[in-house]
Amino acid sequence: MKISAIGEFALIERIRSILPRPHDTLLGIGDDCAALRPTAGTDLLLTTDLLVEGVDFTPQTITPFRLGRKAMGVNLSDIAAMGGMPRTALVTLAISPDEEIEFVDELYRGLREEGARFAVEVIGGDLSASSTLMIGVTLVGEVEAGRAVRRSGAKPGERIWITGRLGASAAGLTALRAGCRLRDDQIETPFEVSGSLREAIRQAIERHLCPIPRIREGRALAQAGVASAMIDLSDGLASDLVHLCRESGVSATIREDQIPIDQAASAIARRFGQEPLTLALQGGEDFELLFTSSWDPADVAAMFSDAVTVTAVGEIQEAGLGCRLERQDGTAIALTGGYNHFRRTERSAISTQPTATGVARRATSY
Amino acid sequence: MKISAIGEFALIERIRSILPRPHDTLLGIGDDCAALRPTAGTDLLLTTDLLVEGVDFTPQTITPFRLGRKAMGVNLSDIAAMGGMPRTALVTLAISPDEEIEFVDELYRGLREEGARFAVEVIGGDLSASSTLMIGVTLVGEVEAGRAVRRSGAKPGERIWITGRLGASAAGLTALRAGCRLRDDQIETPFEVSGSLREAIRQAIERHLCPIPRIREGRALAQAGVASAMIDLSDGLASDLVHLCRESGVSATIREDQIPIDQAASAIARRFGQEPLTLALQGGEDFELLFTSSWDPADVAAMFSDAVTVTAVGEIQEAGLGCRLERQDGTAIALTGGYNHFRRTERSAISTQPTATGVARRATSY
Repeated sequence: MKISAIGEFALIERIRSILPRPHDTLLGIGDDCAALRPTAGTDLLLTTDLLVEGVDFTPQTITPFRLGRKAMGVNLSDIAAMGGMPRTALVTLAISPDEEIEFVDELYRGLREEGARFAVEVIGGDLSASSTLMIGVTLVGEVEAGRAVRRSGAKPGERIWITGRLGASAAGLTALRAGCRLRDDQIETPFEVSGSLREAIRQAIERHLCPIPRIREGRALAQAGVASAMIDLSDGLASDLVHLCRESGVSATIREDQIPIDQAASAIARRFGQEPLTLALQGGEDFELLFTSSWDPADVAAMFSDAVTVTAVGEIQEAGLGCRLERQDGTAIALTGGYNHFRRTERSAISTQPTATGVARRATSY
Repeated sequence: MKISAIGEFALIERIRSILPRPHDTLLGIGDDCAALRPTAGTDLLLTTDLLVEGVDFTPQTITPFRLGRKAMGVNLSDIAAMGGMPRTALVTLAISPDEEIEFVDELYRGLREEGARFAVEVIGGDLSASSTLMIGVTLVGEVEAGRAVRRSGAKPGERIWITGRLGASAAGLTALRAGCRLRDDQIETPFEVSGSLREAIRQAIERHLCPIPRIREGRALAQAGVASAMIDLSDGLASDLVHLCRESGVSATIREDQIPIDQAASAIARRFGQEPLTLALQGGEDFELLFTSSWDPADVAAMFSDAVTVTAVGEIQEAGLGCRLERQDGTAIALTGGYNHFRRTERSAISTQPTATGVARRATSY
């Protein structure tokens, strides 16, 4: 059944029935505003990310359930990058009246599922009609007063750390653009692939469609006071390191041989004739955390469980040197780049433009 | 110059330079999240409204500056309807790379100007490319703990009150659809009009394009404990009264001869062969406050300055009777209707569908 057949108010009631009754909210869906009581002694964190059809995603490559999860996940990652605890969400949806109601059901189930992993509930939002599908999530989080980890706190001499491994999301996008599809957790490919490459493609597409926000890691880093500055890797390591250094007024050098590249990303890069390093540096949407710290490396490493790796990739330096990558051959190159929503020119081996079947990378919010 | 010529990061810097440096915010534009410290002893209010090109507005009838003001204003009205004090805003913008940069400048100047009237600053947001222009504002407000005025508190025997006069916004939309335009505060009409009708059209279009959020009135009602329930008139008196009664589990009767109809709306309705009452009941976007109160009428009236009228229009009754309008001839009709983003059928003398030159009415947020 189409949305136009039931209308806006019935659709709101349907959404209300899909979402759980909020457990720690004074007022949820059904009033002019939602209301909640802030936790004493905390600062509020606010972030918003908008996903636009044909730019940030294409319906051909992502189910509405996964789209809902991703829309929530990219915002969770922003809260993680401040060391915060996510608390509650508002969702705006612009959708065609000709869309099926079940699409909306699945979208909100995805939002609910991803939120529930971190005790986040959708407590309000807005609907409008639009021929272009758009999903906006605004997330409210909390962090102990004065303890938010900013981008601006990095100091010369500190080490630069990265959680997890990079490049899988960009490799997943490469596979999607090559016609691979994830359906019911099975990979379909338009060409023959070995079992191990098939598994790499599955992992990479899964990672691209469904980021893993590093909430627990971000919280631990903030509460222990380990991280002097932090950012999530949404635009790509190169671009996001530049952002952090600009806000901190410092320079940075990272080393090629220390960048943790995802194994699936490497396998896919080899198959499609790409540089694994390029995927890691410029691919974006890994949603890992990059942070700086003056702590002893062994103490930083000891904070992480075996499930999540943490790797020192370089050092912060005095302003004026820029952000550089030291290659294994001893040469150094300047880091720039990452995804830009409005540029028409491409700047890397990876296309920065969405295609008819592609899913583009997210830009930084502001 | 087009947006695509400078790209996303330069556009963010440009927006950052237009917006004032936030005065009471811990962290504004430039990090993964914005951050602020909640005022002790308050509850948080959260609301979001999305304006979509061709559905909620058309660029032909509204300048980007006024569009910015309206996008902020409709959210301020939601905070007013809870008796809250607005505090800070996030803005998402989906816009074509082919749009002129000056459009974005003017849009954010409008957001800044309308926010500044109530000490609200834009402290973050997100950008994406889209062929359909879309502006989403999320507003964070505060209200004394436990004092938010909900839709659900109306009780039988209480009077129903309305601030201001109704119908001007819908009359302004009628005039816009008839080809009238407001340019540099001057009215252009495609037909001859008298001086008094011209002034009525100017006032009505101004009101449609630039709502007046009743923040001060809402605050006063909440702080004095006058209002048992409250809602802002965004969808139209008929529809919004139904919403309030449904949330409160009550019925209501309002009387035709007591509904305060705007003079400019009456003049425009006569010129275009419409019923002034229909504009007032179903027009929407007046953004006045409807509230219920058990207080003595003289005490309620004494709370308002001469600048803003307040009118008792009927009473709340036990559940089961529905929402009714008593006509002057003694008959009663059931109230329904108001704008619905996804319905294709029209239910009133006023078109509920946008036209090529029209500016549609806002739906309720959820």
